[in-house]
Amino acid sequence: MAESQTTSQTRRSTRTGVDLLLQLRGSGTRAGLTEALRDAVRSGHLPAGSRLPASRALANDLGIARSTVTECYSLLLEEGWLTARHGSGTFVAERVQQHRVKEVPAPRREPSHGLGPGAADYADFPRSTWLAAARRAFAAAPHSAFGYGDPLGRMETRVAIADYLARVRGVYADPGRIVLSSGYQHGLGVVARALKNQGHESVAVESYGLDIYRGVLGDAELRIPPLEVDEEGAQVQRLHRLDGNRAVLLTPAHQFPTGHALSPERRAMVLDWARSAGGLILEDDYDGEFRYDRKPIGALQGLDPDRVVYFGTASKSIAPALRLGWIVVPDRLLGAVADAKGRVDTVSVLDQLIFTEFVTSGAFDSHIRSRRQSYRRRRTQLVDAVQSRASGIRVIGMQAGLQAVLILPAGTEAWVLQAAARRGLLVSGLSAFRHPGAERDGRWSDGLVVNFSAVSDSAWPGALEELVRVLP
Amino acid sequence: MAESQTTSQTRRSTRTGVDLLLQLRGSGTRAGLTEALRDAVRSGHLPAGSRLPASRALANDLGIARSTVTECYSLLLEEGWLTARHGSGTFVAERVQQHRVKEVPAPRREPSHGLGPGAADYADFPRSTWLAAARRAFAAAPHSAFGYGDPLGRMETRVAIADYLARVRGVYADPGRIVLSSGYQHGLGVVARALKNQGHESVAVESYGLDIYRGVLGDAELRIPPLEVDEEGAQVQRLHRLDGNRAVLLTPAHQFPTGHALSPERRAMVLDWARSAGGLILEDDYDGEFRYDRKPIGALQGLDPDRVVYFGTASKSIAPALRLGWIVVPDRLLGAVADAKGRVDTVSVLDQLIFTEFVTSGAFDSHIRSRRQSYRRRRTQLVDAVQSRASGIRVIGMQAGLQAVLILPAGTEAWVLQAAARRGLLVSGLSAFRHPGAERDGRWSDGLVVNFSAVSDSAWPGALEELVRVLP
Repeated sequence: MAESQTTSQTRRSTRTGVDLLLQLRGSGTRAGLTEALRDAVRSGHLPAGSRLPASRALANDLGIARSTVTECYSLLLEEGWLTARHGSGTFVAERVQQHRVKEVPAPRREPSHGLGPGAADYADFPRSTWLAAARRAFAAAPHSAFGYGDPLGRMETRVAIADYLARVRGVYADPGRIVLSSGYQHGLGVVARALKNQGHESVAVESYGLDIYRGVLGDAELRIPPLEVDEEGAQVQRLHRLDGNRAVLLTPAHQFPTGHALSPERRAMVLDWARSAGGLILEDDYDGEFRYDRKPIGALQGLDPDRVVYFGTASKSIAPALRLGWIVVPDRLLGAVADAKGRVDTVSVLDQLIFTEFVTSGAFDSHIRSRRQSYRRRRTQLVDAVQSRASGIRVIGMQAGLQAVLILPAGTEAWVLQAAARRGLLVSGLSAFRHPGAERDGRWSDGLVVNFSAVSDSAWPGALEELVRVLP
Repeated sequence: MAESQTTSQTRRSTRTGVDLLLQLRGSGTRAGLTEALRDAVRSGHLPAGSRLPASRALANDLGIARSTVTECYSLLLEEGWLTARHGSGTFVAERVQQHRVKEVPAPRREPSHGLGPGAADYADFPRSTWLAAARRAFAAAPHSAFGYGDPLGRMETRVAIADYLARVRGVYADPGRIVLSSGYQHGLGVVARALKNQGHESVAVESYGLDIYRGVLGDAELRIPPLEVDEEGAQVQRLHRLDGNRAVLLTPAHQFPTGHALSPERRAMVLDWARSAGGLILEDDYDGEFRYDRKPIGALQGLDPDRVVYFGTASKSIAPALRLGWIVVPDRLLGAVADAKGRVDTVSVLDQLIFTEFVTSGAFDSHIRSRRQSYRRRRTQLVDAVQSRASGIRVIGMQAGLQAVLILPAGTEAWVLQAAARRGLLVSGLSAFRHPGAERDGRWSDGLVVNFSAVSDSAWPGALEELVRVLP
């Protein structure tokens, strides 16, 4: 057995028609020889059409039983790697496609100071409290919890999310109308397909936002007419003018990336539009947990759950690695969303078990509280640094969220971004978030979007220093 | 503070226009009052249009500061829950939609003895070794691992899967061509959309299989012409007659559910068809790990990686709760599959980290080994029980996998299923797996598909006893 378990032992058979270099590995002689022969065929060491050693000769060369070699040849004949020609021996089949395994590509090099969008301080992932929650969740879970689960998500998880959303975001929270997704992007794609299947042909979007989400709507063959954004949020008063459009995607609590909340007047206006036009509001509440002033604005969804589809995510509050989001769906759309999601859940049920324990045990609230304090500190430091070192620059959108916008003098954005890149500082220009179909209204022509949550506590002071150095 | 943290404390305000029943809860007076008011509005306790108590009166009633009440009213005004009429007070807004949260539906009752398809012995989920792998994986992971990850899957995970597949299944394993999915069904859907986008209009399927997978292909608007199945697997010789069809979905190692391996002649035949017709083979290797005879048949993919899309899953070998599958994709199809999968991975990156550690540490192999022994034992017990108690019944498809088919006398299937249901035994009729468009060829007209992996070790003897009792 010690002999047969030798791994990667190289032996050379020179007696026969081919010069056979075998890498014997694996947990048994037969399995090891089978794999070594497949490797040799695949890599071209044994070319198509070449003759294999007679089984007795190969067994002698390798010091193994002849029966092992014949069993191995017979399996490879059955699988189609080899062919036998009566009386003349065993050959490598002509039909095997020969390849070499490519090298694994090296990972991309990270910038020195990343303050780009979408990133977060992954050092903050609560490794030990998450593992503790996993231990408790696995100890308590019934065996059946390890099966396929509910296609919409585990009911316990949806109940925990419903309670949390009602408590923290004022969301009308019927667990039966909550659908789990593999993050916001997956959820938006599911809802977009459902809307398309229900006859929608377009979804109005804010004139600033991530192009990746506009792309998701486009993938569902929906048009995306833009609504201009100002200090009161999206100009929803323009919705009436968009003929045939019956849906709008908004970030009401904190416009992304410009940072303003949708004003009370416009909140009322968009709800009235939805009622009179039979419209649907998609509410992206991507960072509802992170608000630093004393009045957290509740979700729009609570005011009219039949006309608002609410989207939340654990990507900002825990980590993108969790791949977990939630959608609160109006009753009449639930069937279409369930169909678009598919018959089996995509979300890890293991993660659902752990997340449920993480939320109900209070670990989630305390994790968010500690991150909120850290982000509030950074936000103050960012404002102070800009005021003292670049006093001509205005900071907007700072009541909430994980990023701020620095308004630059007109015409300087490209230049500042180049200077930042030279210093190894990754930061985005505001224009990168602009809807390509939006009019250029000049309200905010040039700007930087600074994601102050993107780096660790230790990297933040250095990144901030680099940032103020490149400001005009 | 002790006062303000009282939860679910019921207080009644009777002085004013509405009889206000407030459920004070939450972590602070203001937050608690805000939530209680939202609840009261939402549930209809405070009807639309009704007047709220003056802030001074409510503050007195509740024994809290008046400023707390005014702050709370002002927030709810801003959010749109309330409206203020100058000089006459604060009212519940007319536009709030009122609801009652529905009861959570009770879970369905499980059958006493479940031997149905798709289930597995979830008691076998390796809770402690999985948690141990999680601890090691989290300790070793860099911070960046908690971000969004690679849209196709983490490279380390794909390398671990590539090594495993090459070693165990003879798959040609370039990690760059491996794409992770949220299980087989998700992966099949992704590939189906990719094929549709590449101009495919149909995918031939085996005349027996799970209707859910035929449905996934149908969802991508692909036709699914059937290929008859016999003791040599699917009749791939008929592929040439399907005009315009350039793809076929097969279970070559172990036809599902009839259990035969694709014969060596047909393996050669389908590869030759793929080359001559420019065809593509989708290889569903759903239970490749579970083979009980001495010669595990390697994957077809290894013979021609450019013409085979290989699908594997952790649902049978670990648990469906993991929601993890893998696809090995030919180079020329990789871009289309990546596009169809989307810009962000759906698979939990946390699970990927843990699974990688689980595989590379050897825990995966030892887990499979122990399950294989248990299933082999059950398979022997099933054959013995059927032979001794129902000797007229033939058992087919027993060299591998997690289920067996008992061939019943013609015309008895419906009757046996009814008898099984009366005894609380969940088992499937073979006819439920039959492609609705397939001809009725009478080879296996009636049968039971018995998933002998579906119950725990303790439940198995009872389930087996019930099974043989209902056999004719």
